[in-house]
Amino acid sequence: MIRFVIAVLAAMPIWASAQQFKLSSPGRKVELTITNGDFLSYRVAYKGTPVVRPSQLGFVLSKPALTLSHYTVVSVDSSSYNDVWKPLWGEVSEVRDHHKEIVIRLRSQADSRSIMLNLVFRVFDDGVGFRYEFPEQPALKHFVIQEELTQFAMVGNHQAFWIPGDYDSNEYAYNTTLLSDINAIAAANKEPDIAVKSLIGENAVQTPLMMKSADGLYVNLHEAALINFPAMHLVLNKANTTFSAQLVPDAVGNKAYLQTPAKSPWRTIIVTDKATEVLSSKLILNLNEPTQMKDVGWIKPQKFVGMWWEMHVGKASWDLASKKHGASTENVKKYIDFAARHRFDGVLVEGWNQGWEDWFGNWKENVFDFVTPYPDYDLDGLTKYANEKGVRLIMHHETSGAATNYERWMDKAFQLMNDHDMTTVKTGYVGKIIPRGEHHDGQWMVNHYQRVIEKAAAYRVMVDSHEPVHPTGLHRTFPNWLASEAARGSEFNNAPALGITPEHTTILPFTRLVGGPMDFTPGLFHFKLNQFEASRTQVVRTTLAKQLALYVTLYSPLQMAADLPENYEKHLDAFQFIVEVPVDWDETKILEAEPGDFITIARKAKNKSDWYLGAITDENSRELDLQLGFLDKDKKYEATIYRDAEDADWQTKPEAFKIEKKIVTSKSKLKIGLAKSGGCAISIKELR
Amino acid sequence: MIRFVIAVLAAMPIWASAQQFKLSSPGRKVELTITNGDFLSYRVAYKGTPVVRPSQLGFVLSKPALTLSHYTVVSVDSSSYNDVWKPLWGEVSEVRDHHKEIVIRLRSQADSRSIMLNLVFRVFDDGVGFRYEFPEQPALKHFVIQEELTQFAMVGNHQAFWIPGDYDSNEYAYNTTLLSDINAIAAANKEPDIAVKSLIGENAVQTPLMMKSADGLYVNLHEAALINFPAMHLVLNKANTTFSAQLVPDAVGNKAYLQTPAKSPWRTIIVTDKATEVLSSKLILNLNEPTQMKDVGWIKPQKFVGMWWEMHVGKASWDLASKKHGASTENVKKYIDFAARHRFDGVLVEGWNQGWEDWFGNWKENVFDFVTPYPDYDLDGLTKYANEKGVRLIMHHETSGAATNYERWMDKAFQLMNDHDMTTVKTGYVGKIIPRGEHHDGQWMVNHYQRVIEKAAAYRVMVDSHEPVHPTGLHRTFPNWLASEAARGSEFNNAPALGITPEHTTILPFTRLVGGPMDFTPGLFHFKLNQFEASRTQVVRTTLAKQLALYVTLYSPLQMAADLPENYEKHLDAFQFIVEVPVDWDETKILEAEPGDFITIARKAKNKSDWYLGAITDENSRELDLQLGFLDKDKKYEATIYRDAEDADWQTKPEAFKIEKKIVTSKSKLKIGLAKSGGCAISIKELR
Repeated sequence: MIRFVIAVLAAMPIWASAQQFKLSSPGRKVELTITNGDFLSYRVAYKGTPVVRPSQLGFVLSKPALTLSHYTVVSVDSSSYNDVWKPLWGEVSEVRDHHKEIVIRLRSQADSRSIMLNLVFRVFDDGVGFRYEFPEQPALKHFVIQEELTQFAMVGNHQAFWIPGDYDSNEYAYNTTLLSDINAIAAANKEPDIAVKSLIGENAVQTPLMMKSADGLYVNLHEAALINFPAMHLVLNKANTTFSAQLVPDAVGNKAYLQTPAKSPWRTIIVTDKATEVLSSKLILNLNEPTQMKDVGWIKPQKFVGMWWEMHVGKASWDLASKKHGASTENVKKYIDFAARHRFDGVLVEGWNQGWEDWFGNWKENVFDFVTPYPDYDLDGLTKYANEKGVRLIMHHETSGAATNYERWMDKAFQLMNDHDMTTVKTGYVGKIIPRGEHHDGQWMVNHYQRVIEKAAAYRVMVDSHEPVHPTGLHRTFPNWLASEAARGSEFNNAPALGITPEHTTILPFTRLVGGPMDFTPGLFHFKLNQFEASRTQVVRTTLAKQLALYVTLYSPLQMAADLPENYEKHLDAFQFIVEVPVDWDETKILEAEPGDFITIARKAKNKSDWYLGAITDENSRELDLQLGFLDKDKKYEATIYRDAEDADWQTKPEAFKIEKKIVTSKSKLKIGLAKSGGCAISIKELR
Repeated sequence: MIRFVIAVLAAMPIWASAQQFKLSSPGRKVELTITNGDFLSYRVAYKGTPVVRPSQLGFVLSKPALTLSHYTVVSVDSSSYNDVWKPLWGEVSEVRDHHKEIVIRLRSQADSRSIMLNLVFRVFDDGVGFRYEFPEQPALKHFVIQEELTQFAMVGNHQAFWIPGDYDSNEYAYNTTLLSDINAIAAANKEPDIAVKSLIGENAVQTPLMMKSADGLYVNLHEAALINFPAMHLVLNKANTTFSAQLVPDAVGNKAYLQTPAKSPWRTIIVTDKATEVLSSKLILNLNEPTQMKDVGWIKPQKFVGMWWEMHVGKASWDLASKKHGASTENVKKYIDFAARHRFDGVLVEGWNQGWEDWFGNWKENVFDFVTPYPDYDLDGLTKYANEKGVRLIMHHETSGAATNYERWMDKAFQLMNDHDMTTVKTGYVGKIIPRGEHHDGQWMVNHYQRVIEKAAAYRVMVDSHEPVHPTGLHRTFPNWLASEAARGSEFNNAPALGITPEHTTILPFTRLVGGPMDFTPGLFHFKLNQFEASRTQVVRTTLAKQLALYVTLYSPLQMAADLPENYEKHLDAFQFIVEVPVDWDETKILEAEPGDFITIARKAKNKSDWYLGAITDENSRELDLQLGFLDKDKKYEATIYRDAEDADWQTKPEAFKIEKKIVTSKSKLKIGLAKSGGCAISIKELR
């Protein structure tokens, strides 16, 4: 670690006029200005263009009852940081953290108490992160946050890619509108497929919030290192295009219970004039703490198949009483065989445990015990069978939202996994949370998810959280937290209402994925979902080639091949891309990207010379004009191109694809047509 | 079990006019009348005198939204029951359960749904119990109770012994007023020593509620078998002296989440014209289910001393930072020595574990881990030391109200007890409950207490719950639940405001103890509480002899000798009664009693021929006129009489006592003066 202290202005005299502190990013692209005038505020500019107008900072506390918004500056320190760190797994093997930091020590003037509060800003070339720190102090030990006063005043009526603010669900379809046209209630009312909604209001949206200004700046608001704090949503004042932080309340309306020393999560503003740089930004990861875990050898990126989509499309069911129980010993063996044949690491089995007959919708606490299999599921036998085939079973812990119940069972549940050589668990939180009155995104649940991750780590278990709070880069600190859902995933292809639109996957990397890897579960090869129930009208709104490309464009160290073995067996040639595509990378090149329109990404496999490329488009067809300059200059490669056939179209011929092989070098150019909601996946392997 | 079905009126025709069903108790003292007219109601008479006027029955459900108060009677069964059962421990070795039962199967007329509901009444010679049953049925599976409509319409403006209705505390001083003079808010405002209050309203009181009518009937309202349901409080309509059930809400205002088949607790009305029969009533116990526990040999009534009162009087502290940490190895050894010398079973150690520096008042979740001792507490060494002395350490689990945190640690905490030969735990719930928004008396916490009891049983651990919901006779079903606090105990002698009044212990057996044994912690021998901190003005408002008598008048299988060893060592002659008094009994004779005035009880030691007698009085002195007719006619006994000295007076000479020995038989009469707030304790041992 290299940290140069570049200026120390301790115990500065208190000026009569407004105080101002400026800090530029290392490359001078981003400029931060903090002003302590009538109230404390910050503003941000990018290459001289205003991005955030002067915006308020502070908190309202309910205990002690205090408003923290007016301060005296006690001292200011600034420093510079430039170093490289190596993630255990990720999109790149090395991450540069290059920023300047300013710490402003403040004393509250609001009350007879003298409350100390620090503001810490870090300025990167692609944005700003800031957090509040409450140091240990005589006047403040335990305290309760009633409101956070942080604002993000936008400079104009930007185009925004948003989902409704909701304390319990982040599985909405994205809306693309001007800020002035945001209506979260109207948008949510179009979503009958979301069972548990806790909407905040018409002007409330979730982070990561992606925006594009009229003059071509890309601005993303989110948070990093969400620990012991509720998630932040944003409420827009349309009159002045200003967002205010809206923290998720607990059962009695409080936001956070804290004890000094305490820190808020980082509030993050990614800003750039290139959409591709939003996708390559490491700002959020850099604001998270390095892991303290010593023993990490058991943490492995992985690919899996599983017993899941056949429940969604009606071939099977989670519950035994249905008489079409999916997780039978016999059926799971088929998945193990398929996984072994195609060298997948794991087989996810949902519906293996008792309780699915009555698991949802009644705010019931003791649904599952996480250790009792259905009688037709031979856990010991399947463990042995999988082991012989070199495959691992992946555990499924659906809590039905009853976190209290899960916490009672966690030790036994993870011990059962240890006893059966299972190293990965998919958790689920479908339903209203218990403790009743708490929300998926509140402080209590944020702490719960962390308890699960830490308990899992103690048992050397990797976690894939479904229905959790939005990720905020904590996989740097907890590398066994491989992935989360926390957004509309591929399962919504089966949702009767809005489903997955052609543009959805071109927005996810600019929004949800800014916080961390998503278990989207791509790889659908069968597009009309009436395969088992003739009444279904839902269709997957992509081409097959686009499904392949998603393995590259939607980064995750944990990727599922979501479709049924029998659907893959019809297209084993195309399936080969899923078999080969890695889940861990040395390098990532965002070749082109525009939220809501298209994304093209190339990635170099971890510890290998092979590259993989994915390109996707929205509802419009598109011509790809690829330049392979990212390849090593002195090497030759064989590219296997999985592309839309000429007549491919998600509406009429989604399964039309072709596979071409070409010898390529770093000088090669490829022109490839993408169909409507089409895509292209390319493996580029070094020829030796 | 003997159950005679005396009448079956299945599928009765639906009458146009009101239907009426009558049932008399086996000895015809109590008569119950149920009327299905404009609404369903019940009334109760005792020896022909009305006790409960026609009172409503039913529920309001919020899911499905239904009011259940108007019904069609589908069928009526009645039966008679008369049998004797043996409690594992108790005030008597055999309990007779003699009652008649009527089951009225009802169909709701309130809605297009056809909801089935059963009302079960049991009529005893000393009162009535009734419960609601929701059988399994197509129209109702999961449901949520919004209100219980049960009423108890009193026939007059009775004198009542009450504490304010409060969802979180039952540690109030008793008020003795006419029903018309109840003001729970005013009463609670006089109680600064109760830290967490959740008052319901001016007219709300808690059960067990003791009343006395102008014509000398004693009426007690409570509940039995409180399982998976919130506690019931009562709200009085003064205009018609009618109480309505007020169930404790959860964090979002719901009362109970149930799934058919479901049962409410029993609502109980004890009625008699003899105050003594309230104290001997087994109605509540009889309404609880027999235990299903097979292995009960490890459950033992016991007496203990402990590290507790010296914290209360300022000699020591729970926390280490105070520099007067009570639970040091050295100090605990003194208690072990004292316990061994006087043949006590256990030594309670509070403040043994880390966390007490910051444990209260901040709704903090992770205060204690229940397994980490302070560095000056040598748990292994003390375990060995106690073992050598034939004494057991008693564990202390203070949760500070954070039930979620306790549930996470319970397995490890009980395992630690097993590893250290500890068989009894005192639990505590001081503070606001976590899950936040839940209350001590709500359904979630009622289930929590049961989870603790069941988990403890799995580890063969006996439980003494402090700050739990009011007991409802569940110690029959869970005999390892030895005792609870759940009322103002002896610790309030040290409370600066109302403290423990002279009459308090003459009321407790008519109120709190109706539900089950209380860990009152009597036995104080030092009356001015400025022993260690000169500024304390609190005094214990009894004589020493009364402190001895409480071991007999306040029944519990778990009794503490609460004072400091050095205070006992000044009066080892009187202490001898505490050493000898049993905690388990074959017979109990309530010789005389009047709530708020006096109580005299004689009890025969379990499996022995010795008797022990306790008599207490309120602020008035009193002449005891004892007839020992309860003794075996053909035996001679030596009575050791621990009595107030002639000049004893709680205000001037509380410690003045004398000890007399006399030879007595069943024909003996004893005249003994009780001082103001005085008492008398007698051991009566067979001479052979």
